[in-house]
Amino acid sequence: MVDYIGVSDVARIISSMGAGAFMERLAGEIEADYRRWSQFEKSARLASHSPVGVIELMPTSDGRLYSFKYVNGHPKNTAQGLLTVTAFGVLADVDTGYPLLLSELTVTTALRTAAMSALAAKWLARPGSRVMALIGNGAQSEFQAIAFHRMLGIRELKLFDVDGAASAKLEHNLRALPELSDFDIVRTGSTQEACRGADIITTVTADKRNAVILTPPMIAPGTHVNAVGGDCPGKTELHADVLRMPQVRVVVEYEPQSRIEGEIQQMPADYPVVEFADICCGRAPARTSPAQITIFDSVGFALEDYSALRFLHLLASEQRDACRQIDLVPRLPDPKDLFGGTLGGGRRARLRKVS
Amino acid sequence: MVDYIGVSDVARIISSMGAGAFMERLAGEIEADYRRWSQFEKSARLASHSPVGVIELMPTSDGRLYSFKYVNGHPKNTAQGLLTVTAFGVLADVDTGYPLLLSELTVTTALRTAAMSALAAKWLARPGSRVMALIGNGAQSEFQAIAFHRMLGIRELKLFDVDGAASAKLEHNLRALPELSDFDIVRTGSTQEACRGADIITTVTADKRNAVILTPPMIAPGTHVNAVGGDCPGKTELHADVLRMPQVRVVVEYEPQSRIEGEIQQMPADYPVVEFADICCGRAPARTSPAQITIFDSVGFALEDYSALRFLHLLASEQRDACRQIDLVPRLPDPKDLFGGTLGGGRRARLRKVS
Repeated sequence: MVDYIGVSDVARIISSMGAGAFMERLAGEIEADYRRWSQFEKSARLASHSPVGVIELMPTSDGRLYSFKYVNGHPKNTAQGLLTVTAFGVLADVDTGYPLLLSELTVTTALRTAAMSALAAKWLARPGSRVMALIGNGAQSEFQAIAFHRMLGIRELKLFDVDGAASAKLEHNLRALPELSDFDIVRTGSTQEACRGADIITTVTADKRNAVILTPPMIAPGTHVNAVGGDCPGKTELHADVLRMPQVRVVVEYEPQSRIEGEIQQMPADYPVVEFADICCGRAPARTSPAQITIFDSVGFALEDYSALRFLHLLASEQRDACRQIDLVPRLPDPKDLFGGTLGGGRRARLRKVS
Repeated sequence: MVDYIGVSDVARIISSMGAGAFMERLAGEIEADYRRWSQFEKSARLASHSPVGVIELMPTSDGRLYSFKYVNGHPKNTAQGLLTVTAFGVLADVDTGYPLLLSELTVTTALRTAAMSALAAKWLARPGSRVMALIGNGAQSEFQAIAFHRMLGIRELKLFDVDGAASAKLEHNLRALPELSDFDIVRTGSTQEACRGADIITTVTADKRNAVILTPPMIAPGTHVNAVGGDCPGKTELHADVLRMPQVRVVVEYEPQSRIEGEIQQMPADYPVVEFADICCGRAPARTSPAQITIFDSVGFALEDYSALRFLHLLASEQRDACRQIDLVPRLPDPKDLFGGTLGGGRRARLRKVS
């Protein structure tokens, strides 16, 4: 039997431990995995493109556990009431090849993305950061707000979205959470207004084109920019001039992937970046001065999905009601007798002749 | 919700319609898919190797439906009572990227492999073939025997395996099936003896090395060889001299893959082969003379898994009790409100502060 965590199971887990606590623990697991960066097999994702979207498989392995994520991207789905992105994934045992856990990853990816954002900000943002601008108030925004409230101590949130209904939805969802009662949530009329006085700027916009959400005048010295929305070729959020600002330090997850998918796709191949693993392993400094502008150019890396699946599997072992079991692989008395053990023998198929 | 077919569901489907009928209908679906060969995206499989085995993802798409199979290969698993190979797969809608069906594929792969073998033999074997040698009596053998009985009219089966217990298991399983009551099953003492007088020779041995199961003197003119067991680099069953016999015609599934994984890995890159799609589309002849020795150099191709998943999904739509449903992807009232629709709002997470 294989452990199974569906959408309702994730909802129950979050309901029991809290989204903030879940993301904080998950961030710890992600950091632990980044600290053993060299153990991971970093393969390219396998993409299948169609005129309306893409379906991708993202595998990785550390030699002990293997994981892959299935994820689609279909921008026009929302017009039919469907999600733009859905995802699920599997954790497997490298020694036997047996799958251990199948899990939904649509909600979990939002949780792991925000956990990773907050983790990067813990290393990169100025200590004592209290004000965050949140540009783009769509599907990812609540997760980012909760993670930064919990892990960074953000207490003032300045919202902006071109769609006012999105900001209203975000504010409504956040105000319903008792542990965010000390959160000062302010809706603003422009990105510029939202960014004024922000210690951290988080962009989670969804335009599938080279957008210009942030320009240099919006970014004060010392700001940390958490650029989440630009994550595939042709989809960026920062004006290239932001990346050309002299005091900028850009941190990426996995350089070869970020050169294709990240904000830095706008820059030449020798544009300097730092990999996050080098920072959390102590091989490179994080922020080097209070006035430095740090940018986490987030695109999402397979290791983070691996960490999320490993963490869910850990939770499932801690609390047996966290998951269910499904018969995705056969359990046989004699592994050499596949037919007898599944279709014949004890559970013999009464093979009727159908003419 | 996503349709789910586990091992017990496949067992119930087979119990209801019969393994022979299942494979015959599946062979029809596989053939229909091979006839539109050019519509399929044929990507390489994505393999993750470890010292003890391999985990692979095999995707394909025809622009309307996408599928992938997860499959492992761990030869030493049987020592701990586990299967060498387990598999599962997903069928998805290309237009939305949403998964439609998650299914076990361990049992189903054995069914589709045998269905494909019998389908190839229908095109390649001499009409009126009645006697089949079955060399290798392990996990795949029952499926091959039932498919060839049903689809080719094989009525005499000559078994050989270096492990007598395997042959005894196969014979026991086959004799338990009422619709095989007209099957003359004979255990023999050697491959040579099994092949004597055979119209068709099926090899499904499991040695993970360059084995020599068949040599030229064992193969009479006019024989069809269904070579199933050699399916990865370093794993072959035919002596290279068999492939050098002048009257041989070798048929493969997908030439670039078979050059690496098939029996023809022993031959130079210009060794002549015919793709099965060319035969069933009428672009190349099947057997060209009664004395010709035809060889189906089977390795298993992603299209066949696609066909199997599509067929299972079709069965699930015909008989609603064929499958179950799992909440692998969220269904939201408002797709732009992922948080509220899954963790907040109606099913709001009571996010407790855990310090």
